[in-house]
Amino acid sequence: MTKQSISNYFENFSIGTLFHCPTPRVLTDADRVAYIALTGDRSPLYCTTDGLIHPLIVFHTVLGQTVRQISLNAVANLGYAELRWHHPVFVGDQIRTEAEIVGLKENSNRRSGIAYVRTTGYNQNNDPVLSYARWVMVRKKVEAETEYLSSPLIPDLAPSVLPNELERTAKSRPTTENSGGIHFFDDYKTGDRIDHEDGMTINHSDHMIFTRLYQNSARVHFDAIATDGTPLVYGGIPISVGYAQAFNGLENRLGIRAINGGAHANPVHAGDTLYSLSHVLETKELDTQTGALRLRLIVVKNKKPTADFLPKKADQETGKERYDPGVVLDLDYWELMGRRKPGDPT
Amino acid sequence: MTKQSISNYFENFSIGTLFHCPTPRVLTDADRVAYIALTGDRSPLYCTTDGLIHPLIVFHTVLGQTVRQISLNAVANLGYAELRWHHPVFVGDQIRTEAEIVGLKENSNRRSGIAYVRTTGYNQNNDPVLSYARWVMVRKKVEAETEYLSSPLIPDLAPSVLPNELERTAKSRPTTENSGGIHFFDDYKTGDRIDHEDGMTINHSDHMIFTRLYQNSARVHFDAIATDGTPLVYGGIPISVGYAQAFNGLENRLGIRAINGGAHANPVHAGDTLYSLSHVLETKELDTQTGALRLRLIVVKNKKPTADFLPKKADQETGKERYDPGVVLDLDYWELMGRRKPGDPT
Amino acid sequence: MTKQSISNYFENFSIGTLFHCPTPRVLTDADRVAYIALTGDRSPLYCTTDGLIHPLIVFHTVLGQTVRQISLNAVANLGYAELRWHHPVFVGDQIRTEAEIVGLKENSNRRSGIAYVRTTGYNQNNDPVLSYARWVMVRKKVEAETEYLSSPLIPDLAPSVLPNELERTAKSRPTTENSGGIHFFDDYKTGDRIDHEDGMTINHSDHMIFTRLYQNSARVHFDAIATDGTPLVYGGIPISVGYAQAFNGLENRLGIRAINGGAHANPVHAGDTLYSLSHVLETKELDTQTGALRLRLIVVKNKKPTADFLPKKADQETGKERYDPGVVLDLDYWELMGRRKPGDPT
Repeated sequence: MTKQSISNYFENFSIGTLFHCPTPRVLTDADRVAYIALTGDRSPLYCTTDGLIHPLIVFHTVLGQTVRQISLNAVANLGYAELRWHHPVFVGDQIRTEAEIVGLKENSNRRSGIAYVRTTGYNQNNDPVLSYARWVMVRKKVEAETEYLSSPLIPDLAPSVLPNELERTAKSRPTTENSGGIHFFDDYKTGDRIDHEDGMTINHSDHMIFTRLYQNSARVHFDAIATDGTPLVYGGIPISVGYAQAFNGLENRLGIRAINGGAHANPVHAGDTLYSLSHVLETKELDTQTGALRLRLIVVKNKKPTADFLPKKADQETGKERYDPGVVLDLDYWELMGRRKPGDPT
Repeated sequence: MTKQSISNYFENFSIGTLFHCPTPRVLTDADRVAYIALTGDRSPLYCTTDGLIHPLIVFHTVLGQTVRQISLNAVANLGYAELRWHHPVFVGDQIRTEAEIVGLKENSNRRSGIAYVRTTGYNQNNDPVLSYARWVMVRKKVEAETEYLSSPLIPDLAPSVLPNELERTAKSRPTTENSGGIHFFDDYKTGDRIDHEDGMTINHSDHMIFTRLYQNSARVHFDAIATDGTPLVYGGIPISVGYAQAFNGLENRLGIRAINGGAHANPVHAGDTLYSLSHVLETKELDTQTGALRLRLIVVKNKKPTADFLPKKADQETGKERYDPGVVLDLDYWELMGRRKPGDPT
Repeated sequence: MTKQSISNYFENFSIGTLFHCPTPRVLTDADRVAYIALTGDRSPLYCTTDGLIHPLIVFHTVLGQTVRQISLNAVANLGYAELRWHHPVFVGDQIRTEAEIVGLKENSNRRSGIAYVRTTGYNQNNDPVLSYARWVMVRKKVEAETEYLSSPLIPDLAPSVLPNELERTAKSRPTTENSGGIHFFDDYKTGDRIDHEDGMTINHSDHMIFTRLYQNSARVHFDAIATDGTPLVYGGIPISVGYAQAFNGLENRLGIRAINGGAHANPVHAGDTLYSLSHVLETKELDTQTGALRLRLIVVKNKKPTADFLPKKADQETGKERYDPGVVLDLDYWELMGRRKPGDPT
């Protein structure tokens, strides 16, 4: 019997199986600095002495912890829902993750199936810090059919997180001197489009260092031979690079609080250059201090999109909406934003 | 109206305009480690438990903070003067920057102008940690002339920092066991030339990680498409790599304290290999413990310079002095150096 | 007289010469994070809030400190013996190194010689943290023969570290939830072979950042021009990447405690992809909590080895055993492993 793990295949999952995911990891100042160095993020909240950890660091840490048991044999990451950050994470907090199988559907080709996984990250006090549902297509080990071919179990998932579910731990708005931004919640309107202007080329070491940092061991990101010279860039990188680019135009943001859904529409490889656009989908006043913006982050590779860029177009033959081949990420999320106060610059 | 910033053009500057530069950033142990990993610096002062931050980390942090408002639309970085480090910076200090326009001169082609900017970095106690004047050529947005075409205002700048202006906070000389060096202030003479021997090839990820680390968002460093496949290496990299290489021959140095002037004589791109030479320009005894060396750091790309290498040569046709096309940096700076004591090795 | 050091040649060494190696360096959280980001190591012991530093970080730090005086003019690193970790190292400890020449043998070609060097790393309390003997082939400066041509002095070195010499500072076994592993000391048998499955491609920036991090200044790793475009990857990288890969199958390991010997059988260059196998050479029960596994770590480049891969084969002509050209590391070491307890998963 071999000692190494070949991880789980579709057949290894049952409804209700709960995985305790190795390896718990403390997050430190070094994680804040590495994140800046790898993404270029300039959000002031994660650069000050109070040690707040960027929510996307928490996301990558938790997701990386699930790879060994959930997605090492995945074919594709299909979607996210109900993703919310809970307790804020600070330097010195140690993060561990649990993942529960909540839905299973075998594909008709009997070679793979879709696993719905509810994942929760916790800090050292067992406070939840992040939770989400994710569905991934996972290889089967053998062709013999499972009960989930004829009787799939698909969980109900909310189409979006509700604004009143967003975590709003009191947090000082960065000053406009610190953010460099002159726009506040009240200045954004549904339908606004923001071109974030910058392009960022992803090099081999950039993406491998980032992916190793979060102890994500999915082979497809690291092995140039197994991937014919083109290791796949971890899908978290366009999320983080796009969010970093989106600072330009959203400078007074208070932190991503939820992801309603997202698609990794096309793959990214080393050498690709990423550009980002944001659409304002919805605005929701929360209180006198804070509002929530529902934003669509569109990350495009290898051509700078114009402000009227449409990520999806109707296929000429079928009429079906399809992603432009340059779109690598289409992310629907909630961002908190401070409200305009007397004396704020315009 | 768009929400994203397209930064400032020459027309946006007026004499006396003071910019508060985002994003303030705390410097930590992780910044010390990242700097070593990216430059190979071996100066003992920045490797001990006392948490002293390398002066060049402070420089890159402050300069990076000015990019958004001052140099995002720059054509070229033309020069530095009166650059001095003040209060030493330690792990945990948070750095913010102010930049004031002190001179403006529109170019006769009406497409750009030169902005003279006095920049000061502060710690969280509002102690200045670094100040300098820099002049950059910045694009104009439209061709309409400004008052600075006919009436340029050019500030008086000192040709060099005076030795008695150098910050000399008491600091223990590293032991020769710790530095590995056997030369002290008293061993260096004006005219000495030091070949630092080592070559360092700059790869794509090396320079982009370094530049993002200091939240320098100038597009030309990151976007391979906009730069026809050759992103420009941030000019701070030859400064830091050259200074790191200069450890070999200046091991007992106590820290760069001022920059009198500098030229980024030719561009650096990924794949270039950097070599360094130092010339001793001047020696100045400060007290019984410490002296100041005025040094010229010459960084050359893609050919190892011999000890008699001349960075500038007279053009055969015009007789005008021109930089050798291999020279990427010509930096004139003051370094403190401990003085020889009885018992020191020779 | 030049100020820069050209380091030591074979003639500069005498039996008993003791070198104090610059630059002492404090190890911090940032070193833990950088190590994870560069190797992908997932061992839980080095990810928790107690600040334990990975033994291989200590190894690279100490070895890097010896380069300037011992191996800058080395032709090849020939072997290690009697390598043991002593006091554990924690975040905040400052490491310095001493190296003593204990053997010398000039080669018959008079152009080089072998130096046997006993190296010890210490923490700030002068507790030893690592010690080993290493022998390197070092260039001579001139051809004139030394006394070590006719009278070589070769030290006695133990063929292996004894299990009872292994440092066993009490340390909690990671829980199986934290490690993800279900195998314990008692499950491993001499002759077991483990295929660690993963491949890791080494890019230019990956290896240069890693090597600079440990202030290893050997030129051959950094200068693409001097190496005809193929800088040599530091031999510590296959050690660390292989050890990180070996987590899969050895999840409950308690830390590498000794290296009995090792060969860098073939060079690694940027673009090479590394795979790893482990053979269990010996098992030794130490007490009711802990056992020691003597393991052979075989790292292979550019082809995924099968479980029956033989790193050495008899040459068809000479009958002499030779390394397969794909083998880059053959390392014989002692690992501690927790023992199976009632209730442990199977």
